[in-house]
Amino acid sequence: MTEETTLSVEALFERVRNIFEKAGVRLQSAEAVARTIVAGERDHCKSHGIYRIEGCLRVLAAGKVSPDAVPQLHDSGKAVIEVDAGSGFSNPAFEAGKAALAERARQSGLAALVIRDCLHFSALWHDVEALAEMGLASLSLCPSYAFVAPAGGKEPLLGTNPLAFGWPRPGQNPYVFDFATSVAARGEIELHRRAGTPIPEGWAVDKDGAPTTDPDAALTGAMLPFGAHKGSAISTMIELLAGAMLGEFMSREALDFMGGGALLPRHGALIVAFDPATFAARSGRDPLAEGEKLLTAFGAQGARLPSQRRFAARAKSLAEGIALTEAEMDQLDRFEQHGLAALTG
Amino acid sequence: MTEETTLSVEALFERVRNIFEKAGVRLQSAEAVARTIVAGERDHCKSHGIYRIEGCLRVLAAGKVSPDAVPQLHDSGKAVIEVDAGSGFSNPAFEAGKAALAERARQSGLAALVIRDCLHFSALWHDVEALAEMGLASLSLCPSYAFVAPAGGKEPLLGTNPLAFGWPRPGQNPYVFDFATSVAARGEIELHRRAGTPIPEGWAVDKDGAPTTDPDAALTGAMLPFGAHKGSAISTMIELLAGAMLGEFMSREALDFMGGGALLPRHGALIVAFDPATFAARSGRDPLAEGEKLLTAFGAQGARLPSQRRFAARAKSLAEGIALTEAEMDQLDRFEQHGLAALTG
Repeated sequence: MTEETTLSVEALFERVRNIFEKAGVRLQSAEAVARTIVAGERDHCKSHGIYRIEGCLRVLAAGKVSPDAVPQLHDSGKAVIEVDAGSGFSNPAFEAGKAALAERARQSGLAALVIRDCLHFSALWHDVEALAEMGLASLSLCPSYAFVAPAGGKEPLLGTNPLAFGWPRPGQNPYVFDFATSVAARGEIELHRRAGTPIPEGWAVDKDGAPTTDPDAALTGAMLPFGAHKGSAISTMIELLAGAMLGEFMSREALDFMGGGALLPRHGALIVAFDPATFAARSGRDPLAEGEKLLTAFGAQGARLPSQRRFAARAKSLAEGIALTEAEMDQLDRFEQHGLAALTG
Repeated sequence: MTEETTLSVEALFERVRNIFEKAGVRLQSAEAVARTIVAGERDHCKSHGIYRIEGCLRVLAAGKVSPDAVPQLHDSGKAVIEVDAGSGFSNPAFEAGKAALAERARQSGLAALVIRDCLHFSALWHDVEALAEMGLASLSLCPSYAFVAPAGGKEPLLGTNPLAFGWPRPGQNPYVFDFATSVAARGEIELHRRAGTPIPEGWAVDKDGAPTTDPDAALTGAMLPFGAHKGSAISTMIELLAGAMLGEFMSREALDFMGGGALLPRHGALIVAFDPATFAARSGRDPLAEGEKLLTAFGAQGARLPSQRRFAARAKSLAEGIALTEAEMDQLDRFEQHGLAALTG
């Protein structure tokens, strides 16, 4: 058993913020990025926790994300709020637009937030949870890198295109789901490749479009969407709404722009917020109380709600702190002392 | 080979409209319902074509749909347009709200149409296609009857909850998908039961939550969502947005209200329309041209687009007419002459 160090959520936040400041990122952006990374670690989403720090620093070192971009809010007065991230991180851009989005959703019944040209590394549950805390239902979607073939095809044209949804639950954690529309994450295939083990059937096709369980063939071929033609259609919808419709990169273009998938991607993002109070007003019903009837019935029959495990991990982290391994602590030390110079390889 | 009769789309429309008028439905509603049914038949969607006439007449005979309801448009000036169907058919309600929805989406960037308390029997592609013809992207969703268990559960709490999406394609048929979020349609299980054949694995669980291939056990148990926990989450989102949020029936309540699934369901519906021109304006790009890059690349690698088969059938029907069997023609005759009195059993 390796030695573990336990840090409070706040203490870890300070360390991660310091790392990004040391790397030249302006304070407000460093804070927004650190909040997102620490929230991932706090919720035991290791793939979106402090593991991401190195990936973010690599994009900074490559000059492919602007460290000092100040998100610019554009509000035309319509139900569409826009934030130009200016090739900075997505997180400060979302924070810059969140209040205006929520206000407009309450005024109009629904509203959308468009984020333009951002470096995107975070899970989408951050967005929909923040809006649920403000009493709003929401959808968040974005393209990514084109690693996924449409159902019946063989060429990677779609991203792993995540989709998240949040619904407020009075007095408790919101109903939140957030998943890639590919069967598996690319990182999982990579893990099989390193371990020399086959991937499960249905995850990928080789470059000729034939089903494969060979991780190498999968990585040079294409991943598959979840749920066959239905998942493929949803992934296509995400490309169209969060890519084409915004006039921002689609997953193919994002990959071309970065010259491959080694670095984190740049593209846009779309968040749609709904005000249940406005939608239900004429019905005379309480929309959140109606939602509870369904969600409590799920629990009564033993069906797990999405994010349940994450919320349990959060409660534990907030009460007991976050335990990090020696290797993780060493890496934090190195990044905090040396900034981008700590990157090797 | 049975004798077939070929009718033009227009001639079939007149016959179906006459049937609904004979059954006491006000002219405008009869026309809207007939347009929808004939469009299904025209596109070779037999399950939503003239097959549906009998189902509609049965709900009329049971007094569970109002034949003379006049849809009432409510426009508060927000981005949410509402139409009270007044327990009439969904189709005239959609037609009553469509223009206001499109106008508001163009003004606001996006807008929603809420349909309240409608008898719902039609596929959702009608809605999203109509909006795509007006240059808008859109989503259409509604609950149905609670026949589907959430992933990990055993009790039917979710409907087969369909989801449709439309995206305009200049000069050609739009990109349209429309599917149930259950693995299979309930009618397919019913067909297996009648044929005495097992259903495929993964379609359903029995009343104890155990996987089953026995159609009887499936019908007394629960159907399963497509795509495991991801499809289950999407189906839950549809219950929340198109049921709870509107203050209209969720699938469980719809089933209780009708006292079982023998008749077509009554509930609400939600359509969200997006104006790509507004969303893309500041990017300087043409969103529909960007969408074409993706959609034409699908075709280039041989991946079929959803609805492609339906559009091909449509072209054939428009050119050559719609071929009906003798039994189908007999039924049309009977319904046209005797109205509800033609119903047996």
